[in-house]
Formats: sequence, structure tokens, C-alpha cells
Amino acid sequence: MSRYWSPFIRALTPYVPGEQPVNSGLVKLNTNENPYAPSPKVLKAVRSHADETLRLYPDPEMKALKEAIAAYYGLASSQVFVGNGSDEILGLAFLTFFKQTRPILFPDITYSFYRVYCDIFQIKATQIPLSKTFDIQLVDYQIPNGGIIFPNPNAPTGKLLPLSAIKMLVQKNSASVVIIDEAYIDFGGESAVSLIQAFPNILVVQTLSKSRSLAGLRVGMAMGHADLIQGLDRSKNSFNSYPLDRLAAVGAVAAIKDDAYFQDTRHRIMKTRDQTVAKLKTMGFEISASAANFIFIRHKQVGAGTLFNRLRDKGILVRYFDKPRINDYLRVTIGTSTDMEAFFAALEQILP
Amino acid sequence: MSRYWSPFIRALTPYVPGEQPVNSGLVKLNTNENPYAPSPKVLKAVRSHADETLRLYPDPEMKALKEAIAAYYGLASSQVFVGNGSDEILGLAFLTFFKQTRPILFPDITYSFYRVYCDIFQIKATQIPLSKTFDIQLVDYQIPNGGIIFPNPNAPTGKLLPLSAIKMLVQKNSASVVIIDEAYIDFGGESAVSLIQAFPNILVVQTLSKSRSLAGLRVGMAMGHADLIQGLDRSKNSFNSYPLDRLAAVGAVAAIKDDAYFQDTRHRIMKTRDQTVAKLKTMGFEISASAANFIFIRHKQVGAGTLFNRLRDKGILVRYFDKPRINDYLRVTIGTSTDMEAFFAALEQILP
Repeated sequence: MSRYWSPFIRALTPYVPGEQPVNSGLVKLNTNENPYAPSPKVLKAVRSHADETLRLYPDPEMKALKEAIAAYYGLASSQVFVGNGSDEILGLAFLTFFKQTRPILFPDITYSFYRVYCDIFQIKATQIPLSKTFDIQLVDYQIPNGGIIFPNPNAPTGKLLPLSAIKMLVQKNSASVVIIDEAYIDFGGESAVSLIQAFPNILVVQTLSKSRSLAGLRVGMAMGHADLIQGLDRSKNSFNSYPLDRLAAVGAVAAIKDDAYFQDTRHRIMKTRDQTVAKLKTMGFEISASAANFIFIRHKQVGAGTLFNRLRDKGILVRYFDKPRINDYLRVTIGTSTDMEAFFAALEQILP
Repeated sequence: MSRYWSPFIRALTPYVPGEQPVNSGLVKLNTNENPYAPSPKVLKAVRSHADETLRLYPDPEMKALKEAIAAYYGLASSQVFVGNGSDEILGLAFLTFFKQTRPILFPDITYSFYRVYCDIFQIKATQIPLSKTFDIQLVDYQIPNGGIIFPNPNAPTGKLLPLSAIKMLVQKNSASVVIIDEAYIDFGGESAVSLIQAFPNILVVQTLSKSRSLAGLRVGMAMGHADLIQGLDRSKNSFNSYPLDRLAAVGAVAAIKDDAYFQDTRHRIMKTRDQTVAKLKTMGFEISASAANFIFIRHKQVGAGTLFNRLRDKGILVRYFDKPRINDYLRVTIGTSTDMEAFFAALEQILP
């Protein structure tokens, strides 16, 4: 604390990202990174643009990237926004759409950055409890609100809502914006992008960090009615006009265009996930169906805090949230088959 | 305007960056980019890190980059903050230090993003008029305030304050933070980084976009007392934990370490600037001394708006601000000698 901090900065509790050890040799199953390398076409594009043009500002409109995303999803460029990871986009979206008289709504158990954005931008929020089985019950969201946001599939549970349920919510909630945070949608869900043409109040946020193996390049995207995208542009141009560098932009274009690689790697992860779930069930874990590249698991006998520490001792890093309702659970990212074998081997040593 | 925008977003007037034409063939003297390529060591570092590690998040602490900057300036790493260009850092700094009861102070003619940050973060500001000769008169800033910010040298005038004047201001203004925006300091000024050890209330913000030829990579840095840096970290981790991608980080380290290249290119630009000023004076321009990589010029006979348009017709892009007090002036970035010859040739066709 410093006397020079503004009063409200003193009161903040910032987001705490998962540990990012440098060159640790740990099996890293803690931050939902993709275990496969980015498409070779991404690396080639980045290398070939590491040239003297880096002296010039990037295109602040990110025209080429917006066009690639629009073409991929059958949208107009005016329906696409891009940012420095989906976190930056979410931050701008909170500011643009959620600073309203009524409180916004999001689940009590969800991506913990939502609460932080509310603090920093002084936005009122009501957290709606998940059901006992950790399901989002959309009937609970049919109350007056300044906006609604949740991830689909939800984090850290991995639980998915069907597109039909999202559609009904967006339809019934026409007075405010519904943001669907689809960071993990490519691992088994159906994107709500298809609702954009029909509904002016849905914003779909995605990231290249997970399903496109580009956490290190910091690119996210949002899709919605052109009016919503224009609002995001206003906020962006009031904070940082050039959040994507030239290399991130060309790498992202190559990633979006290499659909064959994307399909192959995401299906490999889904297959490993299903194999992992089957194996863990034989080891005494309770696991609900996950449509993400992680699973949320609880052991019938051994506590999650103990498991977290003992796994770490054996070189396996997973995520443990020491918070009410979920402190019996671990969130485990799906790695390669080899990563998961190492995880199973460590568990076999730890479990009774 | 959309009914879904939050009320205060409707009222914003975003920053308008200079035009960034793509593959235009224009001589681009409008956004203060460096005419020289980045250091070859930067390009090599970036290429060699365009590999499978891009699947992993960057180090959120940016340890390697902070250490390189700290070593360069003789600071501790805890006195260094890095961000996605100095614009992002300035935005976070406004939020962290300037959201106070009293208004902050900055010049009436200065980097126009300051006013925009005040709007988006709802910060009160008093703009202090420059003198008739466009000088910042620090005596005007000795009033109760919630913070003070100005560029040194100032933009778009290029006028420099001596370090002794900055020191006196920081000393006399111990109750609030003074931010010195040193985007252009490497082209002839003396950095206030040397004041950091003695004063807990100065934050020095710099960028790699200008003097390190890396506008396309989006890296800025701030230096100050560790308490101020911690405050910036709180804000950053409440908005976007990973604003610098892995390639920007390694490129920036290589840029900071290649001091020989930096010294050579910045001195070349200063030499071209002095030659440009001498030549323009013979062509009927009024020019005050600039310590930046741009000059602020007025012709005795031809209006700035006319010059701007006629230069553009001839393929030369400069910056014209159609605003009170400065609408007689053009801001012209210093390019290579060849760029400036093209500029002179165009002027010779335009001027009477």
C-alpha cells in the first residue's frame, strides 16, 4: 500500500493467474494450455514477418485478422472485434456494456476475473449460485439486470449448456447484453455465434489461447451485432489503440486459416479427455461430463488440497481453488497422452 | 450509438490515432515512427522464439524484460513495470494514481490521449495553458492537484524541459504523483529516471516504439519507486494479466541490450532533424527547437491545412491537428535523409 495509490485501487483484490514456472520441467496441467504446438503455418507466418516492418505501428483496425475470422464464421468484418487475449476483450466489454444502473448477473462459481472487472470498473453484480450439481440454471437469470455473463462451457466445472438454452436466454433478456465466454467451446460445445444474426444483444467471446495453441501470442476475438462491436471499438480507442502487435496479428490469421490442424488437435484432446475420465473413475474419482480441455474432479477419499501438494511434489502441476463450495475439487488440464500417463502414475503412488 | 452501450461510453470521444495506410507507397512522416529497422538482434531473437513454446502463456511477471531494463538504467527490477505500449501503461497509471478527489493537471496542448483517459476513468482534470511560445511553465503547476502529467519533450511541440526543472517540480509536489511521459526523450533530452531513487512520487514512462524502432511490437515501460510499480501491478492484474506476448518480450530484451545500435540510429535521426530544421528555415518555415524525432512547423505564408492536403496529394503524409491554437502548424516526423529530400522536393513544388 502506498499513499499515492488512488483510494479504490487500495480496495482491489486482483485476479491471480495460475502459476507459470519458467523452464521447470514440471508436467503443466494447471492453466488449460494446449499440449500441442501451434500450427506450423503460424510459426512460418510469424518468422517471415519478423522484419524491418516492426518499426511501423500495426493496423489499428486489424482488418486482415477481422476478415479471416469473419470468413471462418460466415460473418461480416463489422461483426468482429479482436483484442489482446479474451481477458482484455472481457475487460473492455464490462466497461462498454455492463456499467449500468442494474446489477449484472454471473454464476457464483465461474471465471474469477468477472468479479475483478466489476471491482476495477465499479460495476454492481449479483452472483447467482450454481445448483448443487454445479449447473447453471438459466431460470435464475430471468430477473431485471444490467447484463449477463458466463462461460460456456463453464469454468472450472467444464459443464456445457446446449445452444437451445442460450438462445432462449438471449431472447428473453432483450433489454441487456448477454456475453457468452466461449474460451473452451471448441472442445465439444456448439458455439452461439450462430445466434448473432438474429439477436442484437449477444456477444460471443473466444480466444486463440486454448484450442489454437496460442496462449503465448495473446489474441482473443468477440463476435456480435455491429453496434456492439462499435461500442467495443470506442472503449478500445479510449484505452489502447494498438493492443495487438504485428506478429500476433499475422500468427492469428494463419491459425484461423489452418482449419485442418485445428480440427486434428482439438479432436485429439477430446479423445484424451474421454480416456482420462474413464481411467480416473477406476481410481475413485467423481467427475461430471466436461466439454472443455480440462476436467473438474474430486476423489472419494483424499482431499483436494492434499492431492494438489503431493502431485506438485511429484512434478505434476494442477489447479486447486481454496474457495467455498469447490475446495474439494481439482481442475486438471488435458495434456498429451504421455502427460496424462505421468499424472496417473503419480496418482497411483499417492492414492491409498 | 446503441441502446446497449453503457451511458458513459456514449459520452466518450475516443483518441484518434494517426492514419496507418497499408502498403500505400506514401512517405510516412505522420506517426513518429523510426525510419530505421529494429536492431538485427531483435529480429533474430523473435525468429528463434517463434516455436512450439507459443502454446504456453508468457511469464506474467515479465522477469527477464524487467531485469534487462533495470540493468540498463541501474535500477532494481522492482522499480520497473512493462506494458503493451506506453499507452496501456498510461491508462493503468491514470487509474492507479490519478483517480483522486482533486483534479489532475496537464497542458492544454499535449498528447491528446490524456483527456481521453480522464473521460473513460472519470477523472477530473484541469488543463494548464502553455505559454504563447508553447512552453510548459512549471510555476503554473504549483497548485493543489491529484497528480501531474506531461510529456518531456512535449508533443506535438517537441519542446524540452531541463532535468533541473523536473526535479524542482517533483520535489515541490510531494503529495501526488508526477508522471513524466518520456516517449521522445532519447532524441536529445535527459531522462528523469535519475530522480527515481530520491523521490517516491515520480513515475517515468517510456516506449520502445520510437527510439528502439519497435512500434509494431507494442512494448512500453515505466520506472519509479517500488510502491508505485506495485500499484500498477494491481491494476494490470485487475484488467489483463498477460498484455505482452512471448515474442514482444524477447524482442524487447534484445532491443534494450543492443545499445550500440540504439546509439547509432538515434544520433542519425538527431542529425537529420538538425539538417531538416536548417533547410526548412530557408524555405520560410518558423520552427522552435525540437528534442524529439519530429518537428512542429508553421509556414509564414501558406496555411497548415493547405500544406497538409497538398503534401498528401504528392505522397507525403504528415500530421495536422485541426484544433485551437495549433491549427497553423504541422507535425512532421523525422525520417531518413531520403524521406526528407522527398519532403523538401514536394514543398518546393507547393510553396510560392
